[in-house]
Amino acid sequence: MYKITTLPGDGIGPEVIAGAVQVLNAVRERTGIEFAITEAPFGGNAYDQTGTPLPEATLRQCLASNAVLMGAVGGPKWDNLPVHLRPEVGALLPLRKKLAVFANIRPSMVFSSLVDASTLKREVVEGLDLVVIRELTGGLYFGEKRREQLPQGGFRVIETLEYSTEEIERVARFAFELARKRSGRLTSVDKANVLESSRLWREVVSGLAAEYPDVELSHILVDNCAMQLVRYPKQFDVMLTENMFGDILSDQASQLTGSIGMLPSASLGGQVGLYEPIHGSAPDIAGQNIANPIATIMSVAMMLRYSLDSEEGAALVERAVSSVLGEGYRTIDIMQPGMTQLGTSEMSRLIAQRV
Amino acid sequence: MYKITTLPGDGIGPEVIAGAVQVLNAVRERTGIEFAITEAPFGGNAYDQTGTPLPEATLRQCLASNAVLMGAVGGPKWDNLPVHLRPEVGALLPLRKKLAVFANIRPSMVFSSLVDASTLKREVVEGLDLVVIRELTGGLYFGEKRREQLPQGGFRVIETLEYSTEEIERVARFAFELARKRSGRLTSVDKANVLESSRLWREVVSGLAAEYPDVELSHILVDNCAMQLVRYPKQFDVMLTENMFGDILSDQASQLTGSIGMLPSASLGGQVGLYEPIHGSAPDIAGQNIANPIATIMSVAMMLRYSLDSEEGAALVERAVSSVLGEGYRTIDIMQPGMTQLGTSEMSRLIAQRV
Ligand SMILES: CC(C)[C@H](C(=O)O)[C@@H](O)C(=O)O
Ligand SMILES: CC(C)[C@H](C(=O)O)[C@@H](O)C(=O)O
Repeated sequence: MYKITTLPGDGIGPEVIAGAVQVLNAVRERTGIEFAITEAPFGGNAYDQTGTPLPEATLRQCLASNAVLMGAVGGPKWDNLPVHLRPEVGALLPLRKKLAVFANIRPSMVFSSLVDASTLKREVVEGLDLVVIRELTGGLYFGEKRREQLPQGGFRVIETLEYSTEEIERVARFAFELARKRSGRLTSVDKANVLESSRLWREVVSGLAAEYPDVELSHILVDNCAMQLVRYPKQFDVMLTENMFGDILSDQASQLTGSIGMLPSASLGGQVGLYEPIHGSAPDIAGQNIANPIATIMSVAMMLRYSLDSEEGAALVERAVSSVLGEGYRTIDIMQPGMTQLGTSEMSRLIAQRV
Repeated sequence: MYKITTLPGDGIGPEVIAGAVQVLNAVRERTGIEFAITEAPFGGNAYDQTGTPLPEATLRQCLASNAVLMGAVGGPKWDNLPVHLRPEVGALLPLRKKLAVFANIRPSMVFSSLVDASTLKREVVEGLDLVVIRELTGGLYFGEKRREQLPQGGFRVIETLEYSTEEIERVARFAFELARKRSGRLTSVDKANVLESSRLWREVVSGLAAEYPDVELSHILVDNCAMQLVRYPKQFDVMLTENMFGDILSDQASQLTGSIGMLPSASLGGQVGLYEPIHGSAPDIAGQNIANPIATIMSVAMMLRYSLDSEEGAALVERAVSSVLGEGYRTIDIMQPGMTQLGTSEMSRLIAQRV
């Protein structure tokens, strides 16, 4: 009996999570897989209810689960709180750290029925299918932060970026293993011509290559990588990067597909997996039943595969999504002439039915 | 009498600098502007000749000039030297610091005759014309770097990122002034939801807004910015960012145009301006007379405008480039069916003639 915690969060989070739960229940009926779902407050709404964006009880609940399925957090309402109470720094970053999910997996794939939604030319993105592995619990985002008042007026901020051999090695192994299961190509991204942490990164990654003779490893500088993702994105298969570079490049990569409302993510490495759509909380469209639930539903597929040991369930979900798209159903963000437009709950129900 | 130092550097650097000097001489003949050009060793070739990539004499020479025109530095030949002897860390970064050029100006514009060279759809990039102002002498690239051996084996690297109110303010003023001369729109990029330096960045930039009531200021998170540059790049006009984000985003932005062989840059803020094409040293095509000299020639136009006080000269160069492209002349990197292909020196000569 698997335990799943859902964290609907803010903005469109509750709507897309509700849709994903419908699909999950359909998988239970089809496959007989057993799980219990418990919802917990998290993010801005948790702050509103309890005074903290990550209540102790929520954290305990997550740690006692097999998997956590998150919607999205944040919104202008909480942007002016003291930093440690904001949803991002007060809830999301500490949750990642406590769950010890050091490997964030972000696939960017172009759905063949949606290739024209990309701003890039068809031939540049058709068939695009890459995965960014982003280190998620180290680096600048988790370093010490200090602000000093200067005698002459104004401030100086000093932040630190730290990485150890061990932190690099564990996420790099993750990427090598994934590359082995896919095309056998791994591109490690760094800024080794300037940063010492990048030089350590490159040394450690290169040092592992001998253990994975079937994987073809290459290195690319982060600035060149941002160019190559525009110029010829299909050159990449599995990409490995530290936290901040991964934040930027994975968002860039996802936008290449033209349909970020479709893209899931998984954060792994600890006892409990964390799954979330890559899109944000989109407060401007919250509560209107127009958000695309597919990114969250695809995150459920990743959860079934990586935390609930159900390749069968994952494949059912992925096929259901493909077939609904193939039949011409769309949410407004991916609407095209001649297709049938559905709301969040109708789209979710249809995918659940197809499962 | 202006003093110009050229630093041809490595790879294709000497070829494109030779072309740019031809054009500069043509500007002298046309306008009567007076200058003296002195060449100095810099980068990998300086290391080969003198044992250091930034010889004292070169630095002194640059500091005594009105403007420095650089080609490109680096190449695999020097990648395994001790860090402080490599062209990037041993020459380029210290040159920027000593010249105190804290504001790096990188325009990305799509030439109408080359719009199809972009991997993005015509309607997404046609008419694109944005400028990234990148802070160039602070942040992580110039912070302290420490590597420690750990008792249990392996290493830990600790680097620091520092920014002060003053460093942010001076580059922000630069961006506000430029925005005022252009569309009046300024977008400041940061990661204020996570980094303390970004929060200071946002405070300082916001604090200046009252002094520039004619400029419409907005803020965007760096990850979202990387997405928006793919989704709808024409929303941007002047963009302002710290050093590392600017490194990544300006390269991404330049690649949107499809012709990075055309894009110049200027680094300003000190007594002496530093001008360079944004492309690298491209060792694989060095010495073949096929490199595109236009990025360096366009850098000459920026030099005429910002350091030699010759708007007339700048306009002459820009018009000459446009007219040569309009007549159908191309280097191989931007070659299209029906056009006439030229080598580096032929293209440079033709542009010099049109001046
Ligand atoms: C909200 C923010 C803290 C977060 C991050 O930067 O990690 C987000 O951008 C992401 O990529 O998941
Ligand atoms: C070569 C390198 C040090 C440099 C930088 O990162 O600043 C380059 O990428 C640039 O953008 O000019």
